[in-house]
Amino acid sequence: MLPGSVASHVVLGAPDIVVLSLPEFAEQARRISRASGLPLMVDADHGYGNALNVRRTVEELEAAGVAALTIEDTLLPRRFGGPEAELIPREEFAGKLRAALDARVDPQLAIVGRSGSLQRAGLDEAVERVRVASACGVDAIFILGTRTLAEVEALYAAATVPLVLNMAPGSRDELAAKGVRIILQGNLPYFVAMQALYDAYRFIKNGGMPEDLRDQALKPELQAAALAEADYATWARDYLGPTKEPS
Amino acid sequence: MLPGSVASHVVLGAPDIVVLSLPEFAEQARRISRASGLPLMVDADHGYGNALNVRRTVEELEAAGVAALTIEDTLLPRRFGGPEAELIPREEFAGKLRAALDARVDPQLAIVGRSGSLQRAGLDEAVERVRVASACGVDAIFILGTRTLAEVEALYAAATVPLVLNMAPGSRDELAAKGVRIILQGNLPYFVAMQALYDAYRFIKNGGMPEDLRDQALKPELQAAALAEADYATWARDYLGPTKEPS
Amino acid sequence: MLPGSVASHVVLGAPDIVVLSLPEFAEQARRISRASGLPLMVDADHGYGNALNVRRTVEELEAAGVAALTIEDTLLPRRFGGPEAELIPREEFAGKLRAALDARVDPQLAIVGRSGSLQRAGLDEAVERVRVASACGVDAIFILGTRTLAEVEALYAAATVPLVLNMAPGSRDELAAKGVRIILQGNLPYFVAMQALYDAYRFIKNGGMPEDLRDQALKPELQAAALAEADYATWARDYLGPTKEPS
Amino acid sequence: MLPGSVASHVVLGAPDIVVLSLPEFAEQARRISRASGLPLMVDADHGYGNALNVRRTVEELEAAGVAALTIEDTLLPRRFGGPEAELIPREEFAGKLRAALDARVDPQLAIVGRSGSLQRAGLDEAVERVRVASACGVDAIFILGTRTLAEVEALYAAATVPLVLNMAPGSRDELAAKGVRIILQGNLPYFVAMQALYDAYRFIKNGGMPEDLRDQALKPELQAAALAEADYATWARDYLGPTKEPS
Repeated sequence: MLPGSVASHVVLGAPDIVVLSLPEFAEQARRISRASGLPLMVDADHGYGNALNVRRTVEELEAAGVAALTIEDTLLPRRFGGPEAELIPREEFAGKLRAALDARVDPQLAIVGRSGSLQRAGLDEAVERVRVASACGVDAIFILGTRTLAEVEALYAAATVPLVLNMAPGSRDELAAKGVRIILQGNLPYFVAMQALYDAYRFIKNGGMPEDLRDQALKPELQAAALAEADYATWARDYLGPTKEPS
Repeated sequence: MLPGSVASHVVLGAPDIVVLSLPEFAEQARRISRASGLPLMVDADHGYGNALNVRRTVEELEAAGVAALTIEDTLLPRRFGGPEAELIPREEFAGKLRAALDARVDPQLAIVGRSGSLQRAGLDEAVERVRVASACGVDAIFILGTRTLAEVEALYAAATVPLVLNMAPGSRDELAAKGVRIILQGNLPYFVAMQALYDAYRFIKNGGMPEDLRDQALKPELQAAALAEADYATWARDYLGPTKEPS
Repeated sequence: MLPGSVASHVVLGAPDIVVLSLPEFAEQARRISRASGLPLMVDADHGYGNALNVRRTVEELEAAGVAALTIEDTLLPRRFGGPEAELIPREEFAGKLRAALDARVDPQLAIVGRSGSLQRAGLDEAVERVRVASACGVDAIFILGTRTLAEVEALYAAATVPLVLNMAPGSRDELAAKGVRIILQGNLPYFVAMQALYDAYRFIKNGGMPEDLRDQALKPELQAAALAEADYATWARDYLGPTKEPS
Repeated sequence: MLPGSVASHVVLGAPDIVVLSLPEFAEQARRISRASGLPLMVDADHGYGNALNVRRTVEELEAAGVAALTIEDTLLPRRFGGPEAELIPREEFAGKLRAALDARVDPQLAIVGRSGSLQRAGLDEAVERVRVASACGVDAIFILGTRTLAEVEALYAAATVPLVLNMAPGSRDELAAKGVRIILQGNLPYFVAMQALYDAYRFIKNGGMPEDLRDQALKPELQAAALAEADYATWARDYLGPTKEPS
């Protein structure tokens, strides 16, 4: 899962307020899908504009190799004089989801409707958003901020497709029984890596010897895997010939 | 310092064999210089082709906001049927350095001649490369793989500009007295961050609770600094008006 | 002048409805400024989002080498259920212009406030928009659709900086006397080139010999200028050595 | 067909000497394939480096949506102290072609071996290059500079796949009987458009009225087609609702 917030940080060093643009986000998705065989779901925020921009968002992210993307019902970026976050009307959300579904070429690309309505407008509105997204034909529905199993049950009762959650108010078995197929695990691993990087730089800045970091550094066999070294060695031998040292 | 190897890994997940292209490298430099006020030196490898490509390399990296860049005398990418690394002739190196110097617009952009000749052809050749680079008018010379103070002394005797090293065969004072102004500290911090990321993902994959990673994650005050949160909050207040919650 | 409409066509083959993104627009501006010494003004539309996005717009376009950019007071992209074009409130326009002015690094980058208010809300509103933009400290004000000299006079009376127009209701001298410094000439040359391309392709498709197009093609001396051939020949000789034919 | 020379001109205003990089070339290919349903063949030059770079070239161009690409046996960019163009050895050419074929994901992507050997080394060498490319399993072979039907016959006798030519020493029927399936028509239409653009700008610079260019400009119905206006109008109505004018 590539969240918009992490992409915004990695690319711009900016908070999660949609100063990142679609091609920058798609480029980050492409970097990941190019280097990995794992299916990648990405948080495409509001689709980078209105429903016509949603079409482009789907086209660019499909070309970038993602397996799934979410389109949400939040007004982004923040409106002049407005609150941090507002819901767009149901009809506008439906227009965006239909645009996304129509724009995909590969039917295996999963389009997920994502809604912040539970937190911002309560369960009844969230249930209506589930109905709207289901009626559009999305492949899954992502409801943010579920706090009770009863909520999950009510949401799934209105859904014709599986649920994605970011909060897990129950065991995996309980949630699976209520249609939940994916539970996001948050972004802490990214920030763990950032703290480790900070500590390593500070260690050197304070006079530490870089070599003393070696025990904490990526193990050679993992580094070889991360760099696809075996693939490149094979390709080099097959296409460039054996390495000869100069005489 | 942005090494080519780290850029290649971050962008492509590829080893350091110049499958990364100039715009991809420049984009990575731009991401760093956009988010940071620290002067950034970058490893521009061989200048991404011949001396005409070196011109473009300097133009694109200058536009990307770098403070210094190195151009090296290695034949890249690896030649068909050739060894892992070969030196280009002195005259070709000189042509590249002159092209780089002529292409910069801002005279404060530092052009550094980088040579692998000490390791590959011995001290006498390295001394000649220092003379060549000095005669071209570079701002500094980076010699890879120095192992003794005597080597550094011999190299500096042939130089008219300061030295950059990646290996420190002496104390800082000793090296400073022999013209050394920058000693690179290697890439281990990057790989420390990668190991920390790997461990965090593995922890979650093995059933760990993400919240239990919070103590290892970037502290909130560092995260706020990394995301320039204070700047964005000020700008949001100044240009978008105070946040109002919907009534 | 690079209009948003032409950029959208060149990059995407799309109409002028802001499906083009900021990095794509900036890349197009960079292509032009890289190849030309002429000052380039660009139509940055609404600044690609809210006032925080305007900041990025200015940063990216300044890095792309533009000499001037316009930020307009139109709600873009089109609102769900809304008309083709709406004005944003004066205060929001002011926030965007102040954001743009604060974001530039080089004070020689000209920030131009652009308003569609004359066409959409009448002269009184347009005069107010001129006051707002002047008070923000923009370098010039671009009012679309002026039809009479009296309008221009009323607008300039409210301005503290020069005017840019896209319609010229008077002679150059008359308009210059009323503060007009730039009159845009529209995009027809672009579409003239497109018709010529279409005709040339159709000629070949219908069995014509490509050589018979040579008289209509760019003259060799212009082609040499367009390709900077003299520069590249000099650089090749200086940095790569004289061309030797293989024996 | 997107030639490297035209791409270099459009993106950089530079001559055809490979100062353009792979991502810039791929981006140009993507612009075309995004806007058009016609199969696009592109001139991928030497594959932007050695055979490992050829792999990336194929990956990026396949992602950009091209239908066919050519990889040629010219040493690019020009070697220091070398002639304008040199052939790479047959074995190196074979390594590049095998790398290209292995790197494609979609077997419908056509990989074309392109050789300048006829002009630079004569018919016997060209025949050998045809054998090499055929043995690698390419989908077609592109031989530059054929001047007689006898040459075409000799080349096709060594080939196991169809030929592509840029010069047509015979009628279409004669060439088709000798395995020729594509004859490139050169780049003159591009330069016809450039001359038309130049003339239109000069007309305005000399005081002409832009409106007087309208008769030469792209006809409205062609412009509507070029901009996919009908598609966008349908999408706008379907996803954004009917346009309402403000009351």
